[in-house]
Order: sequence, then structure tokens, then C-alpha cells
Amino acid sequence: PPLGQRLSCHKIQESLLSSASGYNNYRGILNWCVVMLVLSNARLFLENLLRYGVLVDPIQVISLFLNDPYSWPAACLVIVSNVFVLVALYTERQLSFSELVGYLVHCINMATILTFPAAVVLLVPSVTPAGGAFVLGVYTILFLKLYSYKDVNMWCRELSTAKAKKLARSLSCESQTHTYIQKLTGGDMFYFVFAPTLCYELNFPRSPKIRMSFLLRRLFEMVRCLISWMIPVIQSSMKPLEDMDLSRMFERLLRLAVPNHLLWLVFFYCFFHSSMNFTAELLRFGDRQFYKDWWNSETVTYFWQNWNIPVHKWCLRHFYKPLLRRGFSKIVSQSAVFFLSAFFHEYLVSVPLRMFRLWAFMGMMVQLPLAWFVGRFLRGNYGNAAVWISLIIGQPFAVLMYVHDYYVLHYRQEAD
Amino acid sequence: PPLGQRLSCHKIQESLLSSASGYNNYRGILNWCVVMLVLSNARLFLENLLRYGVLVDPIQVISLFLNDPYSWPAACLVIVSNVFVLVALYTERQLSFSELVGYLVHCINMATILTFPAAVVLLVPSVTPAGGAFVLGVYTILFLKLYSYKDVNMWCRELSTAKAKKLARSLSCESQTHTYIQKLTGGDMFYFVFAPTLCYELNFPRSPKIRMSFLLRRLFEMVRCLISWMIPVIQSSMKPLEDMDLSRMFERLLRLAVPNHLLWLVFFYCFFHSSMNFTAELLRFGDRQFYKDWWNSETVTYFWQNWNIPVHKWCLRHFYKPLLRRGFSKIVSQSAVFFLSAFFHEYLVSVPLRMFRLWAFMGMMVQLPLAWFVGRFLRGNYGNAAVWISLIIGQPFAVLMYVHDYYVLHYRQEAD
Repeated sequence: PPLGQRLSCHKIQESLLSSASGYNNYRGILNWCVVMLVLSNARLFLENLLRYGVLVDPIQVISLFLNDPYSWPAACLVIVSNVFVLVALYTERQLSFSELVGYLVHCINMATILTFPAAVVLLVPSVTPAGGAFVLGVYTILFLKLYSYKDVNMWCRELSTAKAKKLARSLSCESQTHTYIQKLTGGDMFYFVFAPTLCYELNFPRSPKIRMSFLLRRLFEMVRCLISWMIPVIQSSMKPLEDMDLSRMFERLLRLAVPNHLLWLVFFYCFFHSSMNFTAELLRFGDRQFYKDWWNSETVTYFWQNWNIPVHKWCLRHFYKPLLRRGFSKIVSQSAVFFLSAFFHEYLVSVPLRMFRLWAFMGMMVQLPLAWFVGRFLRGNYGNAAVWISLIIGQPFAVLMYVHDYYVLHYRQEAD
Repeated sequence: PPLGQRLSCHKIQESLLSSASGYNNYRGILNWCVVMLVLSNARLFLENLLRYGVLVDPIQVISLFLNDPYSWPAACLVIVSNVFVLVALYTERQLSFSELVGYLVHCINMATILTFPAAVVLLVPSVTPAGGAFVLGVYTILFLKLYSYKDVNMWCRELSTAKAKKLARSLSCESQTHTYIQKLTGGDMFYFVFAPTLCYELNFPRSPKIRMSFLLRRLFEMVRCLISWMIPVIQSSMKPLEDMDLSRMFERLLRLAVPNHLLWLVFFYCFFHSSMNFTAELLRFGDRQFYKDWWNSETVTYFWQNWNIPVHKWCLRHFYKPLLRRGFSKIVSQSAVFFLSAFFHEYLVSVPLRMFRLWAFMGMMVQLPLAWFVGRFLRGNYGNAAVWISLIIGQPFAVLMYVHDYYVLHYRQEAD
């Protein structure tokens, strides 16, 4: 009877926030973060507007990338990069005939992709650090893409010869070789160069059509991120550079950590979600897995495997697995991946700053013992918190080292 | 063959952050929030420690609650509250004989519970606002509990008489009446008074044993919340009070909104998770559902139904459903619940401040049109964001109104 039911109104159950409840739907918390970011940014924006008027100077932003508006070394380098793409394409076309020569041409081409822009950035004084980092980023992505291009085409040839040896039972093998050669066109090559992936594939999965509303939402997000976040934060982080006091490093580190981390998060969203989805939508590229759920990672390894899926996929397919196939052990191969990643981190930071300090390299290599420690001693939410802390504290520590050295190198010399 | 598998490495899929993916496991984001709160708090703490030394003065904290350390009006009032508990208990014991007289005694007892502490707070000048709010909170909780106690015992009598009329087919009905009378003891009464629920029940579900580690974790959380969050934030929010400039209200509102909101969140966690779970564990009280997933609420109604489950349960059981049974429509009953809630919000704020301004009352009543608007026009993540914004902006708006009026009333008069 309803009267009897009314008498009992409690039952044994855990609170949702207790880990024993197993509950984990916190989509609302993500919205909370976005609302808090937008609101606190709106407050800063309003305060600055009231105090100083409009601060964002487009000329100043451009001057981050260009010293002299009449010479555009970075833009020229990006345009020149097309040459390397064409070299790789024509080498592949010839490779159907001579394997060894093609391999050598590829090696020289790839080595040039890494050394030529670095040399230009180091030797041409009108390249700014931001412009240099941008150019080297573009060339590094190109390097990884062309390496994958070379590998996949080589695998296709291996596959067709392997099948030919088996005295091809059907026509399908013949057609696969044909497909691979048919795909060696300029159109397919440039689709791969612009597609948001580093791994070449003969037939990329394609989405049925371009959704206009999706495209506009991503574009709006990118513009909003840039205007309302990146520029003000970078400008305000320029200030402590000028009145750098070396005595209170630890306090400064904590003060730098939070805005640096927020900047990284906004960059992550803007680059890995908005702009990659924008490009994918525009190219009808079907595979939108640019990141996995790294925010839940309970080990350092899980974080590195899931935050940047294009690079992770490339490392797995073209570096880690080939090493395993050659008989190296898992631990050696894993360390080699970290070593390669550390090299590129250092390459992308040291060359544009024209400073060789190995902080980025060491920052990446420190991840190995850290991963061991977190995996060994911390579980669940504690492991997750440890990963977050290493992100929030570790990254600005490396940044601060470079800022410090850059300051000593450039401003102390002027003062003397 | 493995070589063939290697060639294809993409498949059609959405990014996790796209709402189309349907993914919502963001437990890690919750950890991120906690880490960020702790870190930014550690920075503030360190900065203050370096600049001013140890700031937290226990005497100052105590003086928030007590004007004169030798007269403790608030503590006395809390002790006196036991009288009302005993009155309710003895009335119930007598009620088995005379229904109408008992009902009258209950009414007088309950009316006194609300008016007596309010009168003391208003008339005794040594009661501070914080002390007054604490006492009125205790008495309000007691009021709701004793109302539930009265209702449930009445239902038990109704049930037994209804069954008696049916010429009791078995002994079970007889035994239920016995149970209800057996439960009218001081021990059961005080268990209910201290249990973290507002709804009385003859047999509360009990957990098998007290888990010591769980108890200590909750205790640690409470202490940490109090020491490292509540006290510094309250102290720093006292500052703008002193140099209150009325001209820049909007900027001030935004400046107040974020710390006020964080304070509310920490209070929520500390009270609804840590301390309620602590009490429940100590009393082996089984039902730990003190809140549901209000952070995902996409309508204002969902938020109010899920953030405070003890009050929501009480309102449903002892106010909303009885109104429905008496023939009122759903919309009238819902509005009546909001009206009751608005009354208690106003009661808990106006009386301790000795200021009758109706801001809290209006703040609650504004929820009705807001709920209609959000429910009508906003869906999904947009609805969720609207609920968050109303929480972040709406609450400090009411707080600011009181702060402003309190300042005008007390400090302007002194200045004249």
C-alpha cells in the first residue's frame, strides 16, 4: 500500500564521489572548466579594456613571426618545402624500377628536410624564434609524413613480390599492385600532406560530405581561442621576462605553472580538436581520433600513448614495431621511441632559440624513470593526480630553464 | 597477413570531445580541478607566508562566532535545542492516547523551534552574524527532522488503525504497531537527530561496520578544506569589504564571483561529501546518497532536485506529495516547494544579519522563470553551461547585495 511505502525511504548506497561507487560521468565538470575559463578571461579582458583600452596590436603579433616585414624567410621556407614533397613522389614513381638508388635518394631527401631548415634558421638572422619554431614544426611533420610514405610504398612492393612468388592464385594481388601505383599521383600526395595524419595509407576512410555547421563551429572555436586566450596570455607572460629576478625561482615557477598549463590546454583543444577536425571536415577525412582519453591516464605511459594519436600511431607503425621485428626487446624499443621523441623536442626548441641546452631533451628522458615510479607506486586517482602534477609542474620547469638562459644570453650581454 | 594489416591503420570515428561521440568519462578532469585548486592555493599560501608570516589567528577565527569569549549565546542555544527534541519525543509517547492535543503540542513546539532562536539572535547583541547563522541552521535542521518524525509516527498510527479496521488477518500488523511504539526511545530519537538525513524511518539501513580508514580520510579532507581553503578565502574576501567602492559594481561582481563559487564548491564537498559521510560512517548509517550528479544537470529543475538530496527527499515526502494528495496541481505544488525553500533561505540570512532585504527570497523565486527559460530554449551542453553560469553569477549577486547593504548600514553610519 502507498502508506506503507511512504514509511521507508532509505536504502544502502555509496556517495557518487566515493571511488567505491564506480561512477565516472563528469561531462558537466568539463563544461564547468570552459565556463570558468571564459568568465575569468572575460573579467581580465574587461579590466584591461577599462584600464588600458584596446591592447591587442596586430602589428605586434605579426612581428612575433617577422623581424622585417619585407623579408619573409619563414614563409619562403614553407613554400620551398614543396620541393621535398615532389622529390619523394618522383622517387617513388621511379622506384618501381630500381630499389637501392631510390632508397638512397629518399635518405638524402629526408636528411635534407631536417638539416636544411635548421641551417637556414641558424644562419639567417631575420628569422625570429616564433617563426623558426613554426618552420621547423612544418618540416618535422613533413619528415614524418614522407618517411611513412616511403615505408608504405615499400611494403606494397614487398606484398606484391611476396604474392608473385606464391604464383598468384587470383587476380586480386595483381590489382593491389596496380592500386599502389595508381595512387602515386600529385593529387593523392598533396591530399596526404594536408590530411591530419602522419601515417600514409592507400585508401583513407572518407566521411560522406562536408558538414557546414561543424566546419563553422570549429572555425569559431579556433578564432576564439586565438583572440581571447593565446594572445593575451603570451603578452602577459612576456612581462616577467623583463623584470626577471633570479633569486625567487621556486615562487616564480609556481606563478608560471598555472598560466603555462592553461595555455597548453587551450593549445591542445585549439590544435588537436578544433583545427584538426576543421581540416578533416574540409578534406572529408574520416578518422577523427586525434587524441584518446589522456585526461584519465593513471600512468605516465598511458598519457604519452594517448594525448597525441597521430604521432603515437606513427611511432608505433614506423619505429616501435619495425624495431621489434628486427629483434629488439620491448624495453629497448620503448626507450628508443622516447629517445627519438626527446630528439625532436630538443630540435624544435633549441634551433629556433639558437641555444643548445638539452633541457627539452632531458625533460623527455626524465619521463622514463617517472613512468616507472608512477606505475610502480601509485594507483587510480593518485596515479592520475601524479600525471597531472607532472604536466602542470614539469613543463613550465623546462620552459623556465630556457627563458632563464635566453634572458641571460640576450639581456645580460646588453646590460654589460 | 600481418604485412597487409599494416597497410591500413585508419577507420571512420569521431573525436572524443565532439558531442557526437557520446563519450562522457571525465573522472580525470575532476582530479585536474582538485590538483589545480591545491596548487594555486599552495602558491597563495607560500606567497603570504613569505610576505606576512603566519596569518591564521585562531583567536580571530573564534571571534567570528563569539563577540565576548565569556558569554557563548550560540552554544547555549544549541544546548537548549535538546529541550525541543525531548518535547517531541514525549508528545509522541502520549499521542497513543490523545491525537488532537498531541497535534497542538507538536505545532506549538515546532513554531517555537523557528521563532525562539530567531528572537534570541535578534535581541541579544552579543550574537555575531556567523554564530547566528550557525544556530539558525541547527534549529532549521531540527525543525525539518521533528516535522518528519511527527508525520511518520502519524502514518504508522494511520496504518495500524487502517489494518485494525480490516479485522487484522494476521499478527504482522499488530507487530508493526508494536515496532513503532518500541522505537519511541531516547536512543532512537537521538540517533535520528544526529543521522545525516531529514527523513525519519523506523528502521534505517545500517552498514555492517565502521571502516576506520574511510573515517580518517573524510576527517583529513574536512580539516584540509577548513584550514587551507575556507579560512584564507573568507579572510581575503573581508578585504574588499573595507575599501568598498560602489561605482564599479559589475567588475566587482565578476571579481567576487569566482572565489565565491570556489568557496561554495569546497563547502559542498566538505559538508555534503566529507562530513556527512564521516557522520554516516560513525553511526553506521547505510544510505550515503547525499547528492546526485547535479554537475551534469541540463535544466535548473534537475539541479535543485539533485544537489541536496536530504532536503529534496524531505520536501518530496513531507511537503510536495502531501500537497498532491490534497488535490493541488503539480505546478502549484512545485511553486509552493520553491516558496518554502525561499522562505528558509531568507530566514537563514536575514535574521543573523539583522537586515530584512528579501534578496535571498527573490533569488530563490527568480529560479522559477529561469528554470522555465533554460528548459524551454537550451539543450544538452548549452543547458548545462547555463546552469553553471546561473550558479557562478547568480549566487554572488545575492551575496553582493547583502554585503553592500550591510556595509551601508554599519560602516556609513560610523563614518557619519
